[in-house]
Amino acid sequence: MIRSFNPPVRTLMGPGPADVHPRVLAALARPTIGHLDPAFVTMMDELKDLLRLAFRTENALTMPVSAPGSAGMEICFVNLVEPGDEVVVCINGVFGARMKENIERTGGIPIVVQGQWGRAVDPNQVEETLKAHPNARLLAFVQAETSTGASSDAQTLAEIAHRHDCLTIVDAVTALGGSPLEVDAWGLDAVYSGSQKCLSCTPGLAPVTFGERALEKVRQRKTKVQSWFLDLNLVMGYWSGEQKRTYHHTAPVNALYALHESLVMLAEEGVEQAWERHAHHHRALRAGLEALGLELIVPVDERLPQLNSVAVPGGIDEALVRSRLLQHYNLELGAGLGDLAGKIWRIGLMGYSSRPTNILLCVGALANELSALGHRTDAGAALEAVRTVLDQKTPAP
Amino acid sequence: MIRSFNPPVRTLMGPGPADVHPRVLAALARPTIGHLDPAFVTMMDELKDLLRLAFRTENALTMPVSAPGSAGMEICFVNLVEPGDEVVVCINGVFGARMKENIERTGGIPIVVQGQWGRAVDPNQVEETLKAHPNARLLAFVQAETSTGASSDAQTLAEIAHRHDCLTIVDAVTALGGSPLEVDAWGLDAVYSGSQKCLSCTPGLAPVTFGERALEKVRQRKTKVQSWFLDLNLVMGYWSGEQKRTYHHTAPVNALYALHESLVMLAEEGVEQAWERHAHHHRALRAGLEALGLELIVPVDERLPQLNSVAVPGGIDEALVRSRLLQHYNLELGAGLGDLAGKIWRIGLMGYSSRPTNILLCVGALANELSALGHRTDAGAALEAVRTVLDQKTPAP
Repeated sequence: MIRSFNPPVRTLMGPGPADVHPRVLAALARPTIGHLDPAFVTMMDELKDLLRLAFRTENALTMPVSAPGSAGMEICFVNLVEPGDEVVVCINGVFGARMKENIERTGGIPIVVQGQWGRAVDPNQVEETLKAHPNARLLAFVQAETSTGASSDAQTLAEIAHRHDCLTIVDAVTALGGSPLEVDAWGLDAVYSGSQKCLSCTPGLAPVTFGERALEKVRQRKTKVQSWFLDLNLVMGYWSGEQKRTYHHTAPVNALYALHESLVMLAEEGVEQAWERHAHHHRALRAGLEALGLELIVPVDERLPQLNSVAVPGGIDEALVRSRLLQHYNLELGAGLGDLAGKIWRIGLMGYSSRPTNILLCVGALANELSALGHRTDAGAALEAVRTVLDQKTPAP
Repeated sequence: MIRSFNPPVRTLMGPGPADVHPRVLAALARPTIGHLDPAFVTMMDELKDLLRLAFRTENALTMPVSAPGSAGMEICFVNLVEPGDEVVVCINGVFGARMKENIERTGGIPIVVQGQWGRAVDPNQVEETLKAHPNARLLAFVQAETSTGASSDAQTLAEIAHRHDCLTIVDAVTALGGSPLEVDAWGLDAVYSGSQKCLSCTPGLAPVTFGERALEKVRQRKTKVQSWFLDLNLVMGYWSGEQKRTYHHTAPVNALYALHESLVMLAEEGVEQAWERHAHHHRALRAGLEALGLELIVPVDERLPQLNSVAVPGGIDEALVRSRLLQHYNLELGAGLGDLAGKIWRIGLMGYSSRPTNILLCVGALANELSALGHRTDAGAALEAVRTVLDQKTPAP
């Protein structure tokens, strides 16, 4: 007989899910109501307002997709790409490659800007590619590469795209709530994210926002959207505030309570304050890691504060370290993916995980385990380096 | 400033979501762990075993899709249908029509067996259609039509399909855990369901099961599956127990805790006992409704016990009644959809909602509100009719 599952209590410092705040878990467990209940509809309207605040946009079509971030990616491509469309796609990690898969599966023609793993997308390379492919009308790129911790300059890339009469599809899964993202000020057209990163909600939802130019492109389609579940025309019938709600699918009611609560917390803190907190804690973690002799693989001005890719020292079995951290301290770090598998750890400081306690635990635990495996470190110096940075309270922006 | 959302406490007797048991809500709020955590992987294996028990199958590919029931439908069609394929689809309500949409969007050619709303699918009509379309290799139908409360004979339909060398895609969203469903004994090939009906879990997950014949068809595809998110080959890399888990998407960790708990509860009760409970409580509700002078629209031997479609008496504004029930008693009933909009109420007795307290509340509240609107009823007789049936304890099967 299988019994109730009681998970171990972990500290989540991988690439997501991040630690979920107790307020969010409590919201998750509130009584389920119907997805057409008037009280639920009010909550949905608030949720859209809160997401607009997080995305820094006035876009009417701003809502959570009832599925994980990968479905957020897919809703952008299946609605904006039609068979035969050329789409320029930047690949500098796992998620750019997944975008290419999405383009192919919608019948589009991907034109790849091949970048380096662990580096930002190169705007000059993008400009050259757009010049060489004047028929392309879409540029797709990852702002915050979750597989490497590299941050690309979304503002510049969007500006280049628009100069070449292209719309942008932007992966902001790891960015939202953790580092600057300005959907309206930067003119991003279709942006998707995930609930389980810097929003510190449970995994399973994909916030998205579509600007007017993107919607116009959807309206001009000659073919039906290939996915019924992800057809924006139908999804909006349920999420739109302007008309009577039309049943589309049964919304994940409790998951939406949780997202609502996590966004209320973001609004209470302030979006810019949350960005600054992530940056501040990144500096503290980095000081500690460097004092341990560890190196971040992404160049300093291309780093995401919320996701730190650390080179595994020579002679160290990275999986063994992660396994010991989990066993001894209930601490989860992330492994490398793709080209970086076995070579890096990914240390997340996302949302509720971005706090002094976690930084101290991570640096202290790494110091202990590396020492135990024969890699000499100075734990005292590392912890003090963390403390020194934490004491440098940066003024709020 | 938007504040935390505190939902009203409802009794959910619509077509789903059903009342969620406190044990399931408690499971939902347990601490989030990583989707690749060894403890989580153990839980996933248990979840697959529990789903096999509920579906009555040995199918290796049995798992929850990380999205609502509509995505469960879509995973069946995008994997099993290729452009140009003829698919026979039975339409006797909203969800058969949605299946047709899915077939069209995957490039398949739907051949419709048009049935009546509120009636079972007619096996003779299916047989004639299959004879007339010898190239069709798939038969799609809804076992439990959530929009009408009609139950179709899945065993007979599957037997006819196989005789014509067709596989079956079966919608069991409302059936699973509530009324007989025998995936292996009836030879059903691809079956999808939802978490929020008779399993009494929160909405957002779609349990599916695929038999060996269906998998062979997926393996023989000439084209890539059009959805990356729903490509079975990729999804299985994460859910399969036979190989190393490959990251596909971030699983909705807490939602899966909840589904696990709801299935543990089903296993504790026993699947057949749960079916019998739903049947018993259906008889009690029906006695009460009939004593109020209300009629069920589905013929007696085609009725689902867990979803009761009741004709709205002449002169009664059905939406007003539902609104008053919600306002006065926090009781949610469902409206009609499509052809039946405005004509019926849908009263669900699903999962944890299928209990004596709910039946009594529903019959008593309907009696009061109908009386208040000038439709004379005998509440005392109706409640006694309920009690009489509840006292007739049927022996366990």
